Amino acid sequence: MTMIKLEYIINFIKDQIVQIYGYYKNIFIEGIAGMENSNASLLDWIHQNIENPQEKAEKSNSKVIITSKDVFFSKTMESAGKILIQVDNPYLTIAKIGNEFFVKKETPIISQTAIINPGASIGKDVYIGAFTVLGSCKIGDNSIIQENVIIRDDVIIGCNVIIKSGAIIGNPGFGFIKDTDGKLIKFPQLGSVIIQDNVEIGSNTCIDRGAFSNTIIGSNTKINNLCHIAHNVVIGNTTIITAQVNISGSTIIGNNVWIAPNSTLIGHQKIGDDVLIGAGSVVLSDIPSNEVWVGNPAKFLKKR
Amino acid sequence: MTMIKLEYIINFIKDQIVQIYGYYKNIFIEGIAGMENSNASLLDWIHQNIENPQEKAEKSNSKVIITSKDVFFSKTMESAGKILIQVDNPYLTIAKIGNEFFVKKETPIISQTAIINPGASIGKDVYIGAFTVLGSCKIGDNSIIQENVIIRDDVIIGCNVIIKSGAIIGNPGFGFIKDTDGKLIKFPQLGSVIIQDNVEIGSNTCIDRGAFSNTIIGSNTKINNLCHIAHNVVIGNTTIITAQVNISGSTIIGNNVWIAPNSTLIGHQKIGDDVLIGAGSVVLSDIPSNEVWVGNPAKFLKKR
Amino acid sequence: MTMIKLEYIINFIKDQIVQIYGYYKNIFIEGIAGMENSNASLLDWIHQNIENPQEKAEKSNSKVIITSKDVFFSKTMESAGKILIQVDNPYLTIAKIGNEFFVKKETPIISQTAIINPGASIGKDVYIGAFTVLGSCKIGDNSIIQENVIIRDDVIIGCNVIIKSGAIIGNPGFGFIKDTDGKLIKFPQLGSVIIQDNVEIGSNTCIDRGAFSNTIIGSNTKINNLCHIAHNVVIGNTTIITAQVNISGSTIIGNNVWIAPNSTLIGHQKIGDDVLIGAGSVVLSDIPSNEVWVGNPAKFLKKR
Repeated sequence: MTMIKLEYIINFIKDQIVQIYGYYKNIFIEGIAGMENSNASLLDWIHQNIENPQEKAEKSNSKVIITSKDVFFSKTMESAGKILIQVDNPYLTIAKIGNEFFVKKETPIISQTAIINPGASIGKDVYIGAFTVLGSCKIGDNSIIQENVIIRDDVIIGCNVIIKSGAIIGNPGFGFIKDTDGKLIKFPQLGSVIIQDNVEIGSNTCIDRGAFSNTIIGSNTKINNLCHIAHNVVIGNTTIITAQVNISGSTIIGNNVWIAPNSTLIGHQKIGDDVLIGAGSVVLSDIPSNEVWVGNPAKFLKKR
Repeated sequence: MTMIKLEYIINFIKDQIVQIYGYYKNIFIEGIAGMENSNASLLDWIHQNIENPQEKAEKSNSKVIITSKDVFFSKTMESAGKILIQVDNPYLTIAKIGNEFFVKKETPIISQTAIINPGASIGKDVYIGAFTVLGSCKIGDNSIIQENVIIRDDVIIGCNVIIKSGAIIGNPGFGFIKDTDGKLIKFPQLGSVIIQDNVEIGSNTCIDRGAFSNTIIGSNTKINNLCHIAHNVVIGNTTIITAQVNISGSTIIGNNVWIAPNSTLIGHQKIGDDVLIGAGSVVLSDIPSNEVWVGNPAKFLKKR
Repeated sequence: MTMIKLEYIINFIKDQIVQIYGYYKNIFIEGIAGMENSNASLLDWIHQNIENPQEKAEKSNSKVIITSKDVFFSKTMESAGKILIQVDNPYLTIAKIGNEFFVKKETPIISQTAIINPGASIGKDVYIGAFTVLGSCKIGDNSIIQENVIIRDDVIIGCNVIIKSGAIIGNPGFGFIKDTDGKLIKFPQLGSVIIQDNVEIGSNTCIDRGAFSNTIIGSNTKINNLCHIAHNVVIGNTTIITAQVNISGSTIIGNNVWIAPNSTLIGHQKIGDDVLIGAGSVVLSDIPSNEVWVGNPAKFLKKR
C-alpha cells in the first residue's frame, strides 16, 4: 500500500489550487476513490461538470476532497474535520495526481526473452517486454513495447510511444490481384509503418505496412485495442481511435479526430480535422473538417 | 482413436434414459457423428427440436442413435441391428457424453516458458501455457490459462476459469484528458480486473483494468473471441458475450444477458437482466430487463 | 538498398510487354514509386483504369514508367531521356515485378523458440516463427507460420499457406448448453480445422475448431486481420474475407465471394458463389449466388 503525505500532493498541484479549506498537515493518502472504492484515506474528487456537486461532496466517505469552486466548505464538512481543495479542473488535477503518485512506472528494461534483430536501433530508457519480436526497426527513447508484440523490419517508432501486448506492427498489407489464370497473387507491400512521438497503440491492434508508401500514425494520436489500420493509412496528430475501429487502406485522417468504437472506414477516403464519427458508423465517403457523422451508412449529423 | 464401450456410456447417462431399444452389449463407439462425419461406429443423435426426426434417424449411418421420445424404434432399425436410446434432451445428453468420453483434458501443468511474477498466487491444478506472462495476480483452482496470455498485476481470476490464447487481462484502460497545453495525458487506471468462477474468456479478447474501481466479470459468464471489455465494465452472471462484441467503459450488464456478434455498447450504460441484443447492434441507451433490442441505433423489438 | 538492372526486369515481364520506348540499357532500379515515394531511380506505374493517365505519366519523377497502351511516348518524355514500357495490365505487371525483385522472402527456418508437438508433421521448406506453439497438427510444404501463432492438435494446413502472427487456429468453438440446474456447460468441440492450399490468414485472426465436423477454409481464400471464423464454418475457394469480419457458426460460404470489412454473418447461413457483402453489413439470411447485399440488416442491392 502506497501512503503519500497530503502535503506532497498539495505541493505538486499548487499551480492549480484555488483555495484549501481545513487543516491538512500530517495526513496520509493511500489512493484515489472510485465508485466501489471508498474510505477515509482515499482522495475523493468531484468532476466539474457533474450534477449536484455539493451533495456528492457532502456524501463522500473521504477525508480529503478535490472539487471545483462550485462546492463550498460546509459546516458539516468543517465539523467532520474534512479538507476541501478547490481547483480549476478537478478531472485534470486528479489525473495528474494519479499519474504522479499512484501509477506504477515500468522500469526500462529489455527482456532477455525478447528476440531483437541485430539491425534494430533501440533508444534510451526503452522497455521491451517478454516474447516480443523486433525486426530491424527503430524505437525512440522512453518508449514502452509490452510483451508479445511483433514489430517488423523498417518500422520506425518515435519517442514516448506505448505499444501494448499483442499488437502487430508492419506485417504486409492485405492486397491481392487476380492473375490471368484467375489465381490471387499478393500485391507487394514494400512501404513501412511510421509511428510518431507520444502515440499509444492498443492491445492486439494490427497496423499493416504500406504497399509503396508508408502507413503513418501522427504524434499524440491514441489507438485503442483490437483496431485494424490497413496499408497506406495516414492518421494526423492528437486523434483518438477507439476500440475495434477498422480503417481500410489508403484512408487519410486529419488531426483531433475522434472515431467511436467499432466504426468502419471503407478505404481511400479523406477525413478532415476535428471530425467526430459515432459508434458503429460505416463511413463510405469523405468527411470535411469540423463535422459529426453517424450511422450505417454514416451521414452528416451536425457541425462540431 | 478412442474406443469407448457403449455400456459405459449408457451407465454414465442412465438418469437421462427413457428407454433403450436393441441389443447393446459389446459395442464400441469411436466418436460422435457430425454433418460430414458419419459411419457405423460413431454415436449419432437427433436434436429434440429438429423437423422430421424419424426420417433423420432412419437415414443415419450409425449403429447407435440417441433421440427424444418422438423417434420410435422402427422395423427397419430393428432388422438392421440398430440401437435406439431415447432420452429427455438429446442435445444435453450428447454434450455430456462428448465432454466425458471424447474431449481431451488439459493436464494441469505450468509451462517452463511461462513467466510468472514471484508475487503471483496460483491455485491447485492450474494449467498455464507456454509464453504466458503473469504479473502478481491470483489464479483460482482448476483454471486453464492457455498459451501467449498476458495477465497483469492485481488481477484476480476465480476457479474453473478458462482464458484462451492471446487474451490480455488487466492492461490499463483507454482514458485520456487534454492538458491545458492541448496535449493528451493518460487518465490513471488504478483499478483492477476481477474474473469470477466458471468464466470463459475467448482468444485475443482484451479486458482492461478499471480507472479507480474494478472491471468485473461475473461467475458463469462466457465471453468469445476478439471482444473488447473496457475499463470499469461490470458484467453479471451467466451472461453470453459473443465474438467481437465491444463494451465501452463503465457499462453495467445484468445476468443472463445474450449479446450477439459484433455489437457495440457505447459506454456508461445500464443493461438489465435477461436482455438480448441482436447482431451488429449499436446500443446508445440503457436497456431494461427482459427486452430484445436490435439495429443501428438499437431499438426495442419485443419483450423476451 | 536493392539495385536491379532494368534489363532483368524487362526480361522477366517480356510476355506482358506491348512496346518499349526509350533507351533502357544499363539503368538500375532501386524500388517502386508510391504516393510519397518518388525519385528518378524508382520504377513508376500508371494504373490502367485511372483518369488522365497521360498527365500522370508526364508528371512522374521516375525515369522508367510502366503504363497501358493509353499512354503514348511524348516528345517531353523523349527529350527527358525517359523510358516508357507499355503492358496489358500495369497493375498486375507491377505486382509481379515487386514480388520478384523487391519483396523480401522468408528463409524457411524453424525457430528454436517454437514449441512443436512431437506428433506434428511439418512439410518441406516451412517457416515457423518465434514463440509459435504447434500441437500435433500437419503443415504442408512452403507454408509460413509467423511468430506467436497457436495451432492446435489435428489441424491440417495445406501448402503455400501463410498464417500471420497472433492467429489462433483450432481452439474449441464457443458453444454452451444449459444444464438442468441452469449452469452453462461447454458443448464438446471434437471437429478440427482444415486450411487448404494457398490460403492466407491475417494477424490475430481466430479460427475455431468444429463441434462434430470440421471448420474448412478452401484453397486460395484470403482472410485478413482480426477476423472471427466460428466452429463449423465452411468457406469456398478464392474468397476474400477482409478485416474484422465475423462469421458465426455453421455458415457456408461459396467461391469468389468478397466480404467487406467489419461485416457480420449471424450463423447457420448459406452464402452462394460470387456474392459481394458490403462493409459493416449484418447478414441475417441466406444469400443466393451472384448478388450484392449491403446494410444493417443486409438487403439485396443488385446483381453482381
